[in-house]
Amino acid sequence: MFYLIGLGLGDAKDITVKGLEVIKQCSRVYLEAYTSILTVGKDALEKYYGRELILADRDMVEQEADEILKGADVSDVAFLVVGDPFGATTHSDLVLRAVNAGIKYRVIHNASILNAVGCCGLQLYNFGETVSIVFWTDSWKPESFYDKIKKNRDMGMHTLCLLDIKVKEQSMENLMRGRKVYEPPRFMSVAQAAEQLLEVVQNRRERAEEPAITENTVCVGLARVGADDQAVRAGSLHEMAACDLGAPLHSMIITGRLHPLEVDMLKLFSSPEGLSGLKMTDSSTYVS
Amino acid sequence: MFYLIGLGLGDAKDITVKGLEVIKQCSRVYLEAYTSILTVGKDALEKYYGRELILADRDMVEQEADEILKGADVSDVAFLVVGDPFGATTHSDLVLRAVNAGIKYRVIHNASILNAVGCCGLQLYNFGETVSIVFWTDSWKPESFYDKIKKNRDMGMHTLCLLDIKVKEQSMENLMRGRKVYEPPRFMSVAQAAEQLLEVVQNRRERAEEPAITENTVCVGLARVGADDQAVRAGSLHEMAACDLGAPLHSMIITGRLHPLEVDMLKLFSSPEGLSGLKMTDSSTYVS
Repeated sequence: MFYLIGLGLGDAKDITVKGLEVIKQCSRVYLEAYTSILTVGKDALEKYYGRELILADRDMVEQEADEILKGADVSDVAFLVVGDPFGATTHSDLVLRAVNAGIKYRVIHNASILNAVGCCGLQLYNFGETVSIVFWTDSWKPESFYDKIKKNRDMGMHTLCLLDIKVKEQSMENLMRGRKVYEPPRFMSVAQAAEQLLEVVQNRRERAEEPAITENTVCVGLARVGADDQAVRAGSLHEMAACDLGAPLHSMIITGRLHPLEVDMLKLFSSPEGLSGLKMTDSSTYVS
Repeated sequence: MFYLIGLGLGDAKDITVKGLEVIKQCSRVYLEAYTSILTVGKDALEKYYGRELILADRDMVEQEADEILKGADVSDVAFLVVGDPFGATTHSDLVLRAVNAGIKYRVIHNASILNAVGCCGLQLYNFGETVSIVFWTDSWKPESFYDKIKKNRDMGMHTLCLLDIKVKEQSMENLMRGRKVYEPPRFMSVAQAAEQLLEVVQNRRERAEEPAITENTVCVGLARVGADDQAVRAGSLHEMAACDLGAPLHSMIITGRLHPLEVDMLKLFSSPEGLSGLKMTDSSTYVS
């Protein structure tokens, strides 16, 4: 059996009892290590599980998938993913390969950031399409995430922004020279995401577009959701650009139309002035 | 400390190790029993946890919240929720009451249907707003869910439909007579949801509206997601209306624009004809 097991979001003990039992019985256990991270590393997980883990980076999952699946028809192999196993495309690919090779598979689900963001008090069914915000470079500054946020806000929906992760990336020079030297991992902070978003807002103003988002739009910054030291901050986009929520991973929400109960929850995570951009609409909901 | 603990979606062992440890140390443990269900009941959970659970129905959570929170400032009290704790509004309400009473709280997340539906191979970031489909009565047949699905499809997004649950409902007669006699629990099946949706499609045709959804629109029916006997079926809306996916809980997805990899995954859960409604668009994605 090939098991895809979610690890949840915090530390080693956020795995489910079922998932832990499976890990202990498998012949090989892979740890996917490029789409997300826990607050603890491979060593802590190995210690807690009492067994060795094989680190699976993007290259291995994309190029050596058959190696990962090898023998899973006669013994048990597990593939561990931070959060829930179905956040990233490549894991569908593993499932398809398993099925084509006649290998049975099973999924052991866990929390993912997509539902755990509910901890800030925004209702999950009020979220529109999730967007990704990538690190801009000097020559590549895509703005498509802004248009998706705008579309969601036009419908009154909140937007969860997943922030970029760069793990095992090569510099252009090392890539061209074929040197397997990797840059240090980078994780986008809420402040960095907010700055990029403010830059897009500014660009749109210069094109005389009606701004769908302003410096006063109420946002929520989240860090290490599900961990003991998780941090949640609600406030204006302007505030987000200046906040320091500490170690990764970070996510950011741009709010849409807010129900009074959602506003009450956001107050738990806000300074008194943080929500001053909110205005009540005719139907007794709030927008900013 | 007041703990909100997600139980995940399958059975007793889908709780996280962290959640289980907390349950064992609490002075009182409540089990929320009206927004969702596991494949096992209270007895099985009590046996597995080795302790008594207090069943919390809607009345108790809405009217006796202070009773639930009592003493949580000096000892530990847990409130267990199927899936993740932040699916339903009332749980924000519990958090706000706790904070107002000076009681600290913590959330232990778990899988919810909102992320576990990824098991069918549809990409989670291609989902728009989640909708609820409620049981129609002879005199009350709301169609608003259709318009939300249409809006999502217009943008190419998939729609997760959460299907109605009626637990501890009173008949109109018993309600008026003040008799605390409850109807048997009811859980909407994929077939029932598909039938209601087809009826709306028919109504819109009679009003000469361009149909956003037809009998051939590709849908996914899911039952008992995360459990050993989970069932996933992909096919036309027409097929969904005739399928029997067995015991609750059920959910249904109305697809939007499909990536080829999503189509490959859906084929795992479909008859050869099941996806015949799909047509390729110019950009090499599929719609139905």
